[in-house]
Amino acid sequence: MIKAGIIGATGYAGAELVRLLMNHKEVRIVWFGSRSYIDEKYASVYRNFFEIVDAACMDDRLEELAERVDVIFTATPQGFLAGMLNEEILKKVKIVDLSADFRIKDVAVYEKWYQIEHKSPQFIEEAVYGLCEINRDKITKETRLVANPGCYTTCSILTAYPLVKEGLIDPDTLIIDAKSGTSGAGRGAKTANLFCEVNESIKAYGVGSHRHTPEIEEQLGYAAGKEIVVSFTPHLVPMNRGILATEYASLVKKADGTYPSYEEIKAVYDRYYAEEKFVRVLEKGVYPETRWVKGSNYVDIGFAVDSRTGRVIMMGALDNLVKGAAGQAVQNMNLLFGCRESEGLELIPLFP
Amino acid sequence: MIKAGIIGATGYAGAELVRLLMNHKEVRIVWFGSRSYIDEKYASVYRNFFEIVDAACMDDRLEELAERVDVIFTATPQGFLAGMLNEEILKKVKIVDLSADFRIKDVAVYEKWYQIEHKSPQFIEEAVYGLCEINRDKITKETRLVANPGCYTTCSILTAYPLVKEGLIDPDTLIIDAKSGTSGAGRGAKTANLFCEVNESIKAYGVGSHRHTPEIEEQLGYAAGKEIVVSFTPHLVPMNRGILATEYASLVKKADGTYPSYEEIKAVYDRYYAEEKFVRVLEKGVYPETRWVKGSNYVDIGFAVDSRTGRVIMMGALDNLVKGAAGQAVQNMNLLFGCRESEGLELIPLFP
Amino acid sequence: MIKAGIIGATGYAGAELVRLLMNHKEVRIVWFGSRSYIDEKYASVYRNFFEIVDAACMDDRLEELAERVDVIFTATPQGFLAGMLNEEILKKVKIVDLSADFRIKDVAVYEKWYQIEHKSPQFIEEAVYGLCEINRDKITKETRLVANPGCYTTCSILTAYPLVKEGLIDPDTLIIDAKSGTSGAGRGAKTANLFCEVNESIKAYGVGSHRHTPEIEEQLGYAAGKEIVVSFTPHLVPMNRGILATEYASLVKKADGTYPSYEEIKAVYDRYYAEEKFVRVLEKGVYPETRWVKGSNYVDIGFAVDSRTGRVIMMGALDNLVKGAAGQAVQNMNLLFGCRESEGLELIPLFP
Amino acid sequence: MIKAGIIGATGYAGAELVRLLMNHKEVRIVWFGSRSYIDEKYASVYRNFFEIVDAACMDDRLEELAERVDVIFTATPQGFLAGMLNEEILKKVKIVDLSADFRIKDVAVYEKWYQIEHKSPQFIEEAVYGLCEINRDKITKETRLVANPGCYTTCSILTAYPLVKEGLIDPDTLIIDAKSGTSGAGRGAKTANLFCEVNESIKAYGVGSHRHTPEIEEQLGYAAGKEIVVSFTPHLVPMNRGILATEYASLVKKADGTYPSYEEIKAVYDRYYAEEKFVRVLEKGVYPETRWVKGSNYVDIGFAVDSRTGRVIMMGALDNLVKGAAGQAVQNMNLLFGCRESEGLELIPLFP
Repeated sequence: MIKAGIIGATGYAGAELVRLLMNHKEVRIVWFGSRSYIDEKYASVYRNFFEIVDAACMDDRLEELAERVDVIFTATPQGFLAGMLNEEILKKVKIVDLSADFRIKDVAVYEKWYQIEHKSPQFIEEAVYGLCEINRDKITKETRLVANPGCYTTCSILTAYPLVKEGLIDPDTLIIDAKSGTSGAGRGAKTANLFCEVNESIKAYGVGSHRHTPEIEEQLGYAAGKEIVVSFTPHLVPMNRGILATEYASLVKKADGTYPSYEEIKAVYDRYYAEEKFVRVLEKGVYPETRWVKGSNYVDIGFAVDSRTGRVIMMGALDNLVKGAAGQAVQNMNLLFGCRESEGLELIPLFP
Repeated sequence: MIKAGIIGATGYAGAELVRLLMNHKEVRIVWFGSRSYIDEKYASVYRNFFEIVDAACMDDRLEELAERVDVIFTATPQGFLAGMLNEEILKKVKIVDLSADFRIKDVAVYEKWYQIEHKSPQFIEEAVYGLCEINRDKITKETRLVANPGCYTTCSILTAYPLVKEGLIDPDTLIIDAKSGTSGAGRGAKTANLFCEVNESIKAYGVGSHRHTPEIEEQLGYAAGKEIVVSFTPHLVPMNRGILATEYASLVKKADGTYPSYEEIKAVYDRYYAEEKFVRVLEKGVYPETRWVKGSNYVDIGFAVDSRTGRVIMMGALDNLVKGAAGQAVQNMNLLFGCRESEGLELIPLFP
Repeated sequence: MIKAGIIGATGYAGAELVRLLMNHKEVRIVWFGSRSYIDEKYASVYRNFFEIVDAACMDDRLEELAERVDVIFTATPQGFLAGMLNEEILKKVKIVDLSADFRIKDVAVYEKWYQIEHKSPQFIEEAVYGLCEINRDKITKETRLVANPGCYTTCSILTAYPLVKEGLIDPDTLIIDAKSGTSGAGRGAKTANLFCEVNESIKAYGVGSHRHTPEIEEQLGYAAGKEIVVSFTPHLVPMNRGILATEYASLVKKADGTYPSYEEIKAVYDRYYAEEKFVRVLEKGVYPETRWVKGSNYVDIGFAVDSRTGRVIMMGALDNLVKGAAGQAVQNMNLLFGCRESEGLELIPLFP
Repeated sequence: MIKAGIIGATGYAGAELVRLLMNHKEVRIVWFGSRSYIDEKYASVYRNFFEIVDAACMDDRLEELAERVDVIFTATPQGFLAGMLNEEILKKVKIVDLSADFRIKDVAVYEKWYQIEHKSPQFIEEAVYGLCEINRDKITKETRLVANPGCYTTCSILTAYPLVKEGLIDPDTLIIDAKSGTSGAGRGAKTANLFCEVNESIKAYGVGSHRHTPEIEEQLGYAAGKEIVVSFTPHLVPMNRGILATEYASLVKKADGTYPSYEEIKAVYDRYYAEEKFVRVLEKGVYPETRWVKGSNYVDIGFAVDSRTGRVIMMGALDNLVKGAAGQAVQNMNLLFGCRESEGLELIPLFP
């Protein structure tokens, strides 16, 4: 039995971790960390767990926790883990970090976009970027620190990855227009996230400045084999869960001067993803909708070739709290401990 | 392995049955019946099942199905099963009927409220009303036909049952004000159920005439030991899933002329439900909210004693597609086949 | 031109007042009071007013305001106006108070339900309860202080009033099950009102203890000619605007031992409301839905006679921010200044 | 008094026309046309008009209508008006057509994208494309036929127009990612538009094939002075009203090799729109949200310069039923009859 501790268990991603781990056959949660609700019953914060979780919330004492568990999930604000981490801890415990602290290899890029100083850059190199479908072979029993990807980034990267990697699109033309449900904004009490403010409206935010941009650029840059710059614009949608990324890029002409066909592109997607349990490449003419992945670890991907403009429109959908956060964290944990990769994640999307 | 067939698999309750049975360890679905989508891939009707269900929809041939499966779930319009059922079928297969055909013992009451002739009244007596928490001992391996309760009725009855049974309230003062998510209205293409018609509004409907009324009256009448008449008013709420029943009744004074206290009433609820896995009696001052049961088989119950009016306000919440339909059907099936009663139903509510 | 000042202009009710008064031909708003946003542009708080309102928010200096305007609207927390009011102010200016401070004649009842001391009880007697359809003749050019009714109370009272007044129902059997959109909870940044907490759920709150209860009891008590006690249970609905009250009461038998008929009850409603512009008594079999009154000053009322139970089910719907708050405040102001009662309020409901 | 007839008065755009025209001082609606509801009370189809509109629905007899009114609004399916129009009608009456029949000058383009034959191409040349802010001087008392622009197109064109016209962006790089509320899908009873299908989801549709694409290309092509091709992708959002268009384009470098600055671009927008009542160019760092224009005729426009990518991200928001349909139709009618352009349209956005 893997003993797990969660720091930040009372945020939405933390609560989703609890939901998933409670159904995981090889895990027992022994620490529900939450600075805001110390000593309160976890099930009084999230009443869906009434009669399911009996524990009370505990403080976020990372060092003590490292003694008591096999794996720590940190679903915490940026800077928290970087400010607490040290070699002693990493010697004792594996960490799956749901924050951005160890996602970006260039610390200067991190500090510029997040506007905070990184307190433990010495661990950045070691951290593995836990996008399982791409970095699976780097996430092993030897790995100590996994940087769990962001919600927008998981969706954005997986949707474009095969076409970037295979050179079918010009990565510098890539424009990502992403739409997210409101749970992505967290459970903090902010006027902007009140029901009446979000309901019956849609808006863009963080235009040209959202922090997931450099993460997407870094990872797709590896695929492209060069540094790239992308446009990324997130939008807030009046729904609880789900991210849809609509991505536009110019197709690269083939040697014969023609654009790759639908079938050629489909073959590339299938080559990368046909064996991937959690990536579903949809049929021709079918496009992702967030309702079909809600509550599950799937990413649904579809695309259209627009011969008029020479562009491909790629679309990806996932549940921001599952594949975009807690689900992928569990998937990473499964890899870290040699469990079956889909253990605890065989969730059928809940509709309606 | 129990082989199951579903008639009406492409309605919302049918699709929820598929979701639950796909995760049931002892069941295999071998027939996805749907008159409207014959020969279409089931996963093209409900794309959440893409790469999960490979089967195509089949016609609703009950006789053929009886040969091939161990249990049939009928998630069909009123009158369908009554019009097709015969002894030959019942000799071969168990049936869990999600329609109202066999819920009401008095055929005249059925015909009056449903305005259709009952075509096989000879099976009404045999049918067991499948409210598991109340009729558990009647649902056995010998049972052939289970009438799965309605969504409003399950919620309404379980919420008031202990107090009616124990004589703490006057059943003739019972007023049930129920609120339901829109999946209860089904997947038929009706203007009244379009997004823009339902969203940003609430309304009562079927005032004084809703068909779940006699079902509630019959069952609570058994508990009261006499015929009773209740007020039942359903409302349509702009959300996908969930029923909340707010129930009002006058408390019966005790021998000493006082009303029963909160603690006395709580003790009664606990006596009936403390051992019930799927009924959660909430703590003092906590009232049910549909968000805390979404996607699960739980019924949450809370209540307040209003000494000013001498009334108790009882509240119950469930997911109309799970405990209110497919979940309870699976629970009944588990009882019919001697499976663990909660098998396939240990679902943690999905929030948010 | 009537010069108006608003204290609490940046709450939802305050903002609705601004919307209505900007379209009122005889009013000019000269003071947008908001303690939280002093010196900020009003249109930067509510961007719907961009290029419409140029003013900045000002402090809530009631005395100064009294010098500068003809009427003050106070859309403020309970206790604010009672704590500031004095004879000097009332000599200079009329006040329409949207808080509860002067609604309840019995100060002990106010202090019990609101749990605050009333700081200026000497003005309670003078204040007119501004339910225009009932107290129209008391709201005149001589009136100095109007207590604008609560949202739930306006809906609850108007729906039952004629039947209570005419003795057609037993007021002590009155049970009011009310449902409100989330704007009724205000614009304060509370976790419980976040989009993800409210969306896809319904709950009761303030069960047996909501502060609108004594207000309803007092007003309907006047109609009944005696003190009455009612059950009132509010619910939170995932929509922005709208209140629906479903009200249950036992019909009083006529001298001949029969219940009043639908037509007899309808005749009573028509007698009270046929000439009322803002009360629409619906046709037989048609029940109120909040979508049909959104954005307008209407109250829609419908009812059903349930001969099985001897009860009448009365239903009323209004927009909580208009007839339930700002619209009724403007209606009161029109009466106070001798304007046409519907001036600025001839708003067609916005659908969808 | 202008006598107006509406063909298609029971669709969402038709009902919005009724709402606007009922408040228009110089108009009287004399014909509520609706093939589906002939002889039914209009207010029984849209109960918000109860006690406001007394008329019953009438058939869509264009010739008879032309005798009786001064202006006809056709809120009808594509092909309807083209199939009925003739010179006799146009001699008698002005027509504002809310369908696409006369929007596109090249009949071959129309027939290709709409997949129907155009039955009266002889009137295409005469029809004026009624985007008032751009074509105001062509919409005069002499104009007989106005092609009212589409909802997506109005938003998409106005948002990009000044920058295309002034050559600040390369129009062939223009990518429009648009999001619409569900009223844009109409009131037809389709499964795909049921509450439970739309709620809690977002999807793209008509990818690379939406019919508003050629309309955008034609109009922005005029601005660019050449034929252009754009990517246009609409999305369905779980809300009633509103369109947000997020538009991406590469900035054209100035003679000195630098990109135009925020201030330079803002100056261009201001030059085009500062005097336009219904176009609001937002302040720096403020982006449009559909909630701020709901129920009004405004288009809100904001933009960000992304120096990293050399692109500008332009955003526009409007209410699809007002500026995107009925409001603009009224604005066109005002121009046709020499009324004040904003008459009947001075609506403050309704929030929340």
